[in-house]
Amino acid sequence: MNKTPLAPQKVRLPRVVWFTGLSGAGKSTLANALEKVLAANGMHTCVLDGDKLRHGLNRDLGYSHAERVENIRRVGEVAKLMIDAGLIVLVALISPFREDRRKVRELFGPGEFIEVHVSTPLEVCERRDPKGLYRKARAGEMPDFTGISSPYELPEAPQLELDTAHLPVHECVARILTLLQARDREQPTAGKPPPTYNPGWFVAGRTDK
Amino acid sequence: MNKTPLAPQKVRLPRVVWFTGLSGAGKSTLANALEKVLAANGMHTCVLDGDKLRHGLNRDLGYSHAERVENIRRVGEVAKLMIDAGLIVLVALISPFREDRRKVRELFGPGEFIEVHVSTPLEVCERRDPKGLYRKARAGEMPDFTGISSPYELPEAPQLELDTAHLPVHECVARILTLLQARDREQPTAGKPPPTYNPGWFVAGRTDK
Repeated sequence: MNKTPLAPQKVRLPRVVWFTGLSGAGKSTLANALEKVLAANGMHTCVLDGDKLRHGLNRDLGYSHAERVENIRRVGEVAKLMIDAGLIVLVALISPFREDRRKVRELFGPGEFIEVHVSTPLEVCERRDPKGLYRKARAGEMPDFTGISSPYELPEAPQLELDTAHLPVHECVARILTLLQARDREQPTAGKPPPTYNPGWFVAGRTDK
Repeated sequence: MNKTPLAPQKVRLPRVVWFTGLSGAGKSTLANALEKVLAANGMHTCVLDGDKLRHGLNRDLGYSHAERVENIRRVGEVAKLMIDAGLIVLVALISPFREDRRKVRELFGPGEFIEVHVSTPLEVCERRDPKGLYRKARAGEMPDFTGISSPYELPEAPQLELDTAHLPVHECVARILTLLQARDREQPTAGKPPPTYNPGWFVAGRTDK
């Protein structure tokens, strides 16, 4: 991670970085690596990991189409609450359906939502199979498994496409940081968060008394 | 608010302050006033307001017993995510059932969860009736309305009881701040948030390079 061309002081506005892609594509790995870099540089971050949320907020939901839709809706709403609280939110969620991702994006102001397609090919994800889920899915034990028995609808215009079969983690993180920094320069968040939520504002305005 | 005996530097650990009480008791008023003071002193806070959440995360839920239970469960889970991200979370939610509040409390480490009973009497809340809901409830137009047609189960051992019919807002806020400061001294949060989430840690360790 030391090679990352990091200019952390330039990443300061609340954003949602939404990692979408197949199971095993590397979404959580990238979210956690990015969080480490941002947090180590004083950014206030939060990872919303689809798998973990299914043990908490979304533990009442299964994997039917309707439940997947609701799963994504809730994660989007929580991300919105967190961005309003001034956090940089990193979401790792398969979120296979284009329509659901579109709805989530609409919750946010222009420039706040950054869609990262972790585009690692199915065959690589299946070879990795970190949780043994592909094996189960191929054996018919997992109905509605994305990429096998349920579709993954490719993002049409993601802000970034990262194939972890070809890019090392630190390079992926560097590309996201570059994008975040560019966003900060070009697209201030749309009137959000209110000034009272922005920790940077207080650091600048209040610590000198 | 200027009279508040505030020592903000002593409130620094993530906590959930959970305001429970009747509709119109003053929960949101207190949560928002407390947030202003904490935020103005550089604390990173978030208000989870039950009414507002019903337009977002919980907009699929009605007011039946099961839906109220689910409503409270979700707010608890979101508060937990936020406390893990290092925020001070202020929840304003009627949360009428003792059992639900107990379940929520169990999500948190010792000392992290602070139950504030906003104990303004029913007759005062009904006289205020800021949203005209009591009038509707009395007219039979609101089934399951807490205090009228659905019970409010009194907290047995809240950390604080505040009757806004007798205490002005700034005095209520001062008492909560005093409690938060005492908690910081006596009860460090139970191993949470992990150090990497604590902005104070980074401010101390990283800004000098």
